[in-house]
Amino acid sequence: MSPPIITLTTDFGSTDSYVGVMKGVILSICPTAHIIDISHAIPPQQIAAGVRVLAQAVPYFPAHSVHVVVVDPGVGSARRPIALASSHGRFVGPDNGLFGAVWQQGQQAGMVRGVLLDNPAYWLPSVSATFHGRDLFAPVAAHLAAGVALERLGSPLAQPQMLALPEPQQLSATELRGEVVAIDHFGNCISNISRTALDALGSCATLSATFGAGSSTPPSLALRRTYADVPVGAPVALIGSSGYLELAVREGHASQHYGITTGAPVVVRAASPLAAALPE
Amino acid sequence: MSPPIITLTTDFGSTDSYVGVMKGVILSICPTAHIIDISHAIPPQQIAAGVRVLAQAVPYFPAHSVHVVVVDPGVGSARRPIALASSHGRFVGPDNGLFGAVWQQGQQAGMVRGVLLDNPAYWLPSVSATFHGRDLFAPVAAHLAAGVALERLGSPLAQPQMLALPEPQQLSATELRGEVVAIDHFGNCISNISRTALDALGSCATLSATFGAGSSTPPSLALRRTYADVPVGAPVALIGSSGYLELAVREGHASQHYGITTGAPVVVRAASPLAAALPE
Amino acid sequence: MSPPIITLTTDFGSTDSYVGVMKGVILSICPTAHIIDISHAIPPQQIAAGVRVLAQAVPYFPAHSVHVVVVDPGVGSARRPIALASSHGRFVGPDNGLFGAVWQQGQQAGMVRGVLLDNPAYWLPSVSATFHGRDLFAPVAAHLAAGVALERLGSPLAQPQMLALPEPQQLSATELRGEVVAIDHFGNCISNISRTALDALGSCATLSATFGAGSSTPPSLALRRTYADVPVGAPVALIGSSGYLELAVREGHASQHYGITTGAPVVVRAASPLAAALPE
Repeated sequence: MSPPIITLTTDFGSTDSYVGVMKGVILSICPTAHIIDISHAIPPQQIAAGVRVLAQAVPYFPAHSVHVVVVDPGVGSARRPIALASSHGRFVGPDNGLFGAVWQQGQQAGMVRGVLLDNPAYWLPSVSATFHGRDLFAPVAAHLAAGVALERLGSPLAQPQMLALPEPQQLSATELRGEVVAIDHFGNCISNISRTALDALGSCATLSATFGAGSSTPPSLALRRTYADVPVGAPVALIGSSGYLELAVREGHASQHYGITTGAPVVVRAASPLAAALPE
Repeated sequence: MSPPIITLTTDFGSTDSYVGVMKGVILSICPTAHIIDISHAIPPQQIAAGVRVLAQAVPYFPAHSVHVVVVDPGVGSARRPIALASSHGRFVGPDNGLFGAVWQQGQQAGMVRGVLLDNPAYWLPSVSATFHGRDLFAPVAAHLAAGVALERLGSPLAQPQMLALPEPQQLSATELRGEVVAIDHFGNCISNISRTALDALGSCATLSATFGAGSSTPPSLALRRTYADVPVGAPVALIGSSGYLELAVREGHASQHYGITTGAPVVVRAASPLAAALPE
Repeated sequence: MSPPIITLTTDFGSTDSYVGVMKGVILSICPTAHIIDISHAIPPQQIAAGVRVLAQAVPYFPAHSVHVVVVDPGVGSARRPIALASSHGRFVGPDNGLFGAVWQQGQQAGMVRGVLLDNPAYWLPSVSATFHGRDLFAPVAAHLAAGVALERLGSPLAQPQMLALPEPQQLSATELRGEVVAIDHFGNCISNISRTALDALGSCATLSATFGAGSSTPPSLALRRTYADVPVGAPVALIGSSGYLELAVREGHASQHYGITTGAPVVVRAASPLAAALPE
């Protein structure tokens, strides 16, 4: 039988005892759980970053996994603690927008339900006002992983909070404008323009992308397949592993090299069919 | 049956192979162990920081856990390797003060015993002079977790080294002075003034706290319940999740904002009952 | 029965979802695997650093472990994905020199075989051009750990790529010159001069070492046994836990203190027998 899986995504960092303490709570309730860290480096209080990382990770985990996400600027306030179950997995955390996309996807698939976590039987005996990751979300996740039904954890939830994320804008039939939403460990500048949005604009071979607006930004770049398609040190635009357009520098750090940070504009243009047929 | 749990708290960082190597040693001896990282970011050689992190984590782990702590400036010198067992867990590491508090707590509960790790049968065959985490503490912890009795690991220990930690001072009947002992990942400035010490001073509603001594430090602050009790960007004093008075900035970084670091003074004052009854 | 072990060594960092996603893929295929992080802080694209960390870790893991190493500047290009099996463990990653040393050691022991990973039955259904760690190496490692025979993963491999690492030079009968190849978390400056090379030069008690070439570097240092053999703040040269000559500062950071970085020269000299007999 597969052991239970609980994943953790937080803005807690890895220097303090916070994450370790959550794992102690989980193992006290569900001793056979495999606990997997997704990231503890979500920028503090950046809910949208938590949403993005969760969306990248969930498709690669077994559907019986329980995903705990704690990016929780409103801890101890009126914001509600919730849990969801969809065909992709189960989810536990604060109701502040973190799970809006999970809910929408679940509804499209016709299978998602949620509860407000208002049954203290599944919390630690004493709940602090500042660390619900430890006192509430970890124990609830452990009980879920250990087999407790979602419905026992609290009252039905009509709908979680949604989070409006910046969406690319169609500037014209051949032009799309998005923005950089993340810089990864390698310095790659990842945009919010998906493969689907690019496909709607035209064949990838006909597209070129401009990142940033300053004088030192790279020129308009044809889309490539992988980093090694350009010489070492050269900029390259491609669809990254999560399915979004990104700017990289081969074996370099695009963000530092070009001074591009989150929020920088990204414009994609489809060439005329004639131009596209020409070699670059 | 619950799998064995071994936790690791070190100053080894996460960039080198040191922690991974300890896990390889543990799994070679106790293949079913769940190995949990508490923190590997204890500041190098800062024994007091290791004590603090250990104290935060241990209460949340099952009592059958084995806690390995390696902050070991004296590795290879005359300092002794030890192991303890109390009703809260088992502990393995260097005898340099890391386990003084564990021992005192255990004695208060009437149940703690220790051994000097002088039985090489439970070490790696070859012990280096510079990495006892790998050669001695990891294998001993794995054997403990696998069921070896504490007494077989070495000779009885009369008492481990104690560590004198800075204690808050009572300045007057209504005034307590402590200090900042840690800055966490969020920039929160955590003091050594416990909830118990505050309770002795007066009801929390009557208390106010001053952090730091410079000209740019925040004003005297009434104690609040959680971060969201103040506006975004405002300072807030509260009892944090580990039970100690701390200074935070809501959705900000108090340490950077106010230039407050470890060692900064913290003074708590109880207002007269009349003053306390006034709105802030 | 021992659960399967899969170790991960990458240059992915710990901030993004990349490592977590690989773990999700592994657990989807081999749910009982214990996944152990060796390091995700290999400097981006530094294959030699990956080789070094792998060499340190492998000897301490059970021989049934599967070691995944992804430092992969050529992802998506013509570089080949491979897997090896030796008496020390199994290995999965890109064929770019990462596994040259494993192959040589295996051949000396008379037991190593390899395959080119060209059987897509053991990959994810869709393989990206930029993240073979997720799409190819993680699933292959999970299948190996779950019991699939190496030979089923692809065609036989005649020999993997070798990587030429900087080797120490014998300057004279009594002088050896190497270089600093790594700075660890403590700031220790680790050279490529092994215990074996030192033994060939003379008894350790007769050796002295010079690190760096600048005016602010430490004086020639006699070799010591451990950090605590010198006063706090003093420099010390010793054979570190991986068997290589290193420079440290007791309870300090040698690299920052002396401005010594990777590539700095290290010269070891054997004193004449007469000089060696004198007290230092």
